Amino acid sequence: MAAGEAQEGSEERREGEALMANRVRPLSPQTARSLVESIDAFLFDCDGVIWKGDKLIEGVPEALQALRSMGKKLVFVTNNSRKSRKQYAKKFAALGLDVSEDEIFSSSFAAAMFLKLKNFPKDKKVYVVGEEGILEELELAGFTCLGGPGDGKKSLQLKSDLWFEHDKNVGAVIVGLDQYINFYKLQYATLCIRENPGCLFIATNRDAVGHFTDLQEWPGAGCMVAAICGSTQREPIVVGKPSTFVMDFLLERFQIDTSKMCMVGDRLDTDILFGQNAGCKTLLVLSGVTTLSELQSPSNSIHPDYYARSVSDVIELLRT
Amino acid sequence: MAAGEAQEGSEERREGEALMANRVRPLSPQTARSLVESIDAFLFDCDGVIWKGDKLIEGVPEALQALRSMGKKLVFVTNNSRKSRKQYAKKFAALGLDVSEDEIFSSSFAAAMFLKLKNFPKDKKVYVVGEEGILEELELAGFTCLGGPGDGKKSLQLKSDLWFEHDKNVGAVIVGLDQYINFYKLQYATLCIRENPGCLFIATNRDAVGHFTDLQEWPGAGCMVAAICGSTQREPIVVGKPSTFVMDFLLERFQIDTSKMCMVGDRLDTDILFGQNAGCKTLLVLSGVTTLSELQSPSNSIHPDYYARSVSDVIELLRT
Repeated sequence: MAAGEAQEGSEERREGEALMANRVRPLSPQTARSLVESIDAFLFDCDGVIWKGDKLIEGVPEALQALRSMGKKLVFVTNNSRKSRKQYAKKFAALGLDVSEDEIFSSSFAAAMFLKLKNFPKDKKVYVVGEEGILEELELAGFTCLGGPGDGKKSLQLKSDLWFEHDKNVGAVIVGLDQYINFYKLQYATLCIRENPGCLFIATNRDAVGHFTDLQEWPGAGCMVAAICGSTQREPIVVGKPSTFVMDFLLERFQIDTSKMCMVGDRLDTDILFGQNAGCKTLLVLSGVTTLSELQSPSNSIHPDYYARSVSDVIELLRT
Repeated sequence: MAAGEAQEGSEERREGEALMANRVRPLSPQTARSLVESIDAFLFDCDGVIWKGDKLIEGVPEALQALRSMGKKLVFVTNNSRKSRKQYAKKFAALGLDVSEDEIFSSSFAAAMFLKLKNFPKDKKVYVVGEEGILEELELAGFTCLGGPGDGKKSLQLKSDLWFEHDKNVGAVIVGLDQYINFYKLQYATLCIRENPGCLFIATNRDAVGHFTDLQEWPGAGCMVAAICGSTQREPIVVGKPSTFVMDFLLERFQIDTSKMCMVGDRLDTDILFGQNAGCKTLLVLSGVTTLSELQSPSNSIHPDYYARSVSDVIELLRT
């Protein structure tokens, strides 16, 4: 039986190792304290972390206020491209949160900044499969755009002599979430990417779904981006999470080492991956799309440093 | 210099081997004769082979007539799901071609036959992201469907209290080319696939683009299918080319060995691959989307047995 016992012992060890490899640590009073002490800037995803649709998540205002009073910088990084930074600042204010435009980094802003960094020529145009936020950020950055919600009203009917004209001066197509998606826009974007030499194909993000209403998930930008990949057989440049493009701006703005930043998000494959890619600490909150069983599932390979029920836990645990 | 000569000789051999590996043989009077003699059934793709949009390709009626008079069976296999077999028969007739419904295998028919073979329960419903042809074939096969062009007129506007209802009895979603694609349909299909247990996700085909008008290419079913893959993170069952699902029907109908069939098409990644997957001889015609330089490109790995300018070449070469 000695051999059997030895075998059992090694099985236990293997199980223990597997658990360690798939470690998922809840935030505790002790780890909350050491986390807050070691962090200078907290980066928050918005949807599922700060709010859900148009409803504030419980305890968020108090938690943000407490972190601010401890001298922490707060940054809000959202993949949702429907709004510009200006529109987001209004949403924060409407929910009673005091957040300035400078603290907001949306993927609509990131797309405009990408073109700016690329020195995208001002005489070239941008075709947008997406909503108002992208148009606003592009126009603020001085670019000329076509498409957007206006093209959502355009229709066409396939018939033998139909020829679809597109602007040969379009040098970039930006694709984000678009509730006004239609065949007209799909053809416009496809023609620009396939036929305009050197035309860039930029995705705000590739999230499969998002909580665009309080009650339900809806197809996300990943749906529209995939459609254009399907017709062009091209892959996009992604500027939102988990791409670290936004991080370059954050680093320049705040001059804080990424090891002193903590990314707080509700999605493993965007928020937590983004934080890890950039070298930040990571905290998953369960107030959005990810459940504890998804986090603990053996098929999940993305492990945040900690997890908590919601943002308010961070402060509540400090008081314990 | 002997060493140098030997090196040149081996370079020539390597070049020769590369050419053999990437062999592209034009149909000649001799190969046309041996091809026609060895084949009992010719399988034709339609768009780019028989017609382009609504225009017949030159010499096609005479070539088809000549093959019929030699006792060859003719079969028309199209990935375009916009029409039913009945509607295709009308299109053939309008173009002056005498083709019966029984000779036509469209991906819209294939989708309906797939459900029939799967014994899809008659009390379950099918949600269609696609056009009239799919609805017609499904109804002919006795299935109840939702969606299609009618849902192209439905719109929605995201707002906080919006809840989108979907039918829990939908047991299959079929996605094909849809010029009436919109956010409503994308959400409907996504909810069925993500939330109805066991719901099938069927693609008529995954063609990136198609010649749906005479003058231009347009985003194909591959665009709509990719969109639903993007929002559901699921992969579809493909019933059109290059899947060999249609071949099972052809074999049952015609009782001809696939080695005695020749697939004639204008696309390498659907038609020629379909023919090769099924064990048929293959002939690429250059009257559609594939150019000679694409065929001969070193990056192309799909090599038909022969290529010709168009279907009429087959008969013209026999007369040479």
